[in-house]
Amino acid sequence: MLSKSHIKLITSLKQKKYRLKHGFFVVEGVKTIKELLQSKLILHALYTTESFNIDAKDEILVTEAELNRISFLTTPNIALAIFKIPEEKSIVQNGLVLALDTVRDPGNLGTIIRLCDWFGIKDLVCSKETVDCFNPKVIQATMGSITRVNISYVDLELFLNETSLPIYGAFMEGETVYNTSLPDDGVLVMGNEANGVSEDIEALIKRKVSIPRFGDLQATESLNVATATAILLSEFRRG
Amino acid sequence: MLSKSHIKLITSLKQKKYRLKHGFFVVEGVKTIKELLQSKLILHALYTTESFNIDAKDEILVTEAELNRISFLTTPNIALAIFKIPEEKSIVQNGLVLALDTVRDPGNLGTIIRLCDWFGIKDLVCSKETVDCFNPKVIQATMGSITRVNISYVDLELFLNETSLPIYGAFMEGETVYNTSLPDDGVLVMGNEANGVSEDIEALIKRKVSIPRFGDLQATESLNVATATAILLSEFRRG
Repeated sequence: MLSKSHIKLITSLKQKKYRLKHGFFVVEGVKTIKELLQSKLILHALYTTESFNIDAKDEILVTEAELNRISFLTTPNIALAIFKIPEEKSIVQNGLVLALDTVRDPGNLGTIIRLCDWFGIKDLVCSKETVDCFNPKVIQATMGSITRVNISYVDLELFLNETSLPIYGAFMEGETVYNTSLPDDGVLVMGNEANGVSEDIEALIKRKVSIPRFGDLQATESLNVATATAILLSEFRRG
Repeated sequence: MLSKSHIKLITSLKQKKYRLKHGFFVVEGVKTIKELLQSKLILHALYTTESFNIDAKDEILVTEAELNRISFLTTPNIALAIFKIPEEKSIVQNGLVLALDTVRDPGNLGTIIRLCDWFGIKDLVCSKETVDCFNPKVIQATMGSITRVNISYVDLELFLNETSLPIYGAFMEGETVYNTSLPDDGVLVMGNEANGVSEDIEALIKRKVSIPRFGDLQATESLNVATATAILLSEFRRG
């Protein structure tokens, strides 16, 4: 059974303000929930139409109609879970670190987290203006990868000022990434969907790289930030 | 002013069945509409709250409330246009051709069309089960690239059987794409989001390639089809 206070809490978690206040975030879909249950994340409550056979005190069986009421999705997916937001771990300053300067779209951030997981990027460093990684649309797009990437929200200018790693950034007018020798240890900065890397951050970037365009008409304005990140991470890793 | 018949026509174009029946598709957003106006596509009608200063017979000034009624978006964007669906051109059998085996997600197809434009892929060949490229969500995601890529819906098995181009495909268990020598002319087949390339199509693929995974835990199941396409097209083009 779903009480009014449950509904109120869950609905509030759509907003970052309430996620921060309560320290919880929402995950939907059996597959992702199961993956998160196997991680170090701590479950607060699970609302489901079909039992997961976990500790009964954490599991609340609901009807489809009740799930519809609390779900953030158009087509709810059997279960909705509330997990505790984990504490941020410190950023390990070696290997390849990905930094995002104000990436706004939840789907893009979700895809980028999944890419970090694939390419073994342990630390994803986000400017404070980047969309919250516990946004339900981000969680949906990560497919469970969020449990395997350490995501930190920082003053990006300060972070880049203090790091001893070489700083690379994606720019339309950068040197062709195919001809650039890329190190194993470094920071790669990706910019905002519409405006790219901001001026203050650009000043801290040592090497600007770009993905060459091959179209005849040269009319495509830019690649989507998630697809550009995919190509650049692949370039760093392919050696 | 917006008549009932206009509203009925526009609303119907959300569905593929009616797009095929009427031969029209809907585009929203000033930027994309302007890009399409400059292409070879033929405008049928433009509904806008601000004049585009084009031939008055094609332009229907509407109020914001009227635009809200016809828009497919949560936040309508000043203008909505109806264009004629162009005739399919024949597929040019040289250079690099991208083929999609049942890609279902409109956002993925839109991103892939934008990637084709960036990487100078002239022909995108889709299985009949692939999402319709005139779906409004696809159009939204292409950012105008749809005018620069020739998209054909075909019997993919037949197409691959008949082509003289070498056929490559993306598979989890393929050889590392980083170590594969890739030709200038060829077909690259990408599979469905959940199931990959289907069995009948797999039988026709000569070279299976994969993007290596670098994560320690080896737990990420797969890359999203759009990001995998980004990396593979980049690999074909980088030489």
